[in-house]
Amino acid sequence: MRPTLVPIGRVHSPLRQPAEAPKQGFEGAPDARLEIQPRFLRGLDGIAVGQDVLVLTWLHQADRDVLAVHPRDDPAQPLAGVFATRSADRPNPIGVHRVRVLAVENDGSLQVQGLEAIDGTPVIDIKPAGGWLVTG
Amino acid sequence: MRPTLVPIGRVHSPLRQPAEAPKQGFEGAPDARLEIQPRFLRGLDGIAVGQDVLVLTWLHQADRDVLAVHPRDDPAQPLAGVFATRSADRPNPIGVHRVRVLAVENDGSLQVQGLEAIDGTPVIDIKPAGGWLVTG
Repeated sequence: MRPTLVPIGRVHSPLRQPAEAPKQGFEGAPDARLEIQPRFLRGLDGIAVGQDVLVLTWLHQADRDVLAVHPRDDPAQPLAGVFATRSADRPNPIGVHRVRVLAVENDGSLQVQGLEAIDGTPVIDIKPAGGWLVTG
Repeated sequence: MRPTLVPIGRVHSPLRQPAEAPKQGFEGAPDARLEIQPRFLRGLDGIAVGQDVLVLTWLHQADRDVLAVHPRDDPAQPLAGVFATRSADRPNPIGVHRVRVLAVENDGSLQVQGLEAIDGTPVIDIKPAGGWLVTG
């Protein structure tokens, strides 16, 4: 079984290159806009301003053949398996981002706070973050 | 762009049917075993017993055409968009599960605590859960 993902939208962000992005959203990522495709807008009903959501993205520039990395790109750190890290390079490069909803636009776009994905990154899912808390 | 997922392993669980599964792992899900394919085992290096990880699964029995549901399958609750809920039915049915690693077996399987996915569910990613805390 090799499931196929259908992007539901994409990220608009001032981040243009992976090297500009912080490793985690709480490390100073900029606000971003999630443009959702019209046919999926019905799925957003009930998302409220001020709510925290998990945004799942497809990290489209990642290298899917990588199984071990130096954590945080620091060569002084010993190699670790990608599943023990948050590396973007991994067999299925899915980003899980906890962000706060700042606004819901008339066109259905969501403005969100602190997203570390670069401009153009496909969005594949959004879930309520209730029950999850970032501790930093 | 329609990315294709490569399952890295699968769930072995006493849960056989979606109806048996609790809505969330912390609502009493059983322990489970994550069988990882040999070619991906290198990616587990560094995962430790006692650590909390996020397990991403492909909820293969989900209905991908659903955009609105009654939260918690309760018809008394008004319809909500799937992105405002944790429904398995959604365009890209990816489960995000926070679980504790109970054991790493000699064959590379991970024993984990409290996973609400049913037996046979494909595993697509594992990430450290550091910085995330379940509040229930």
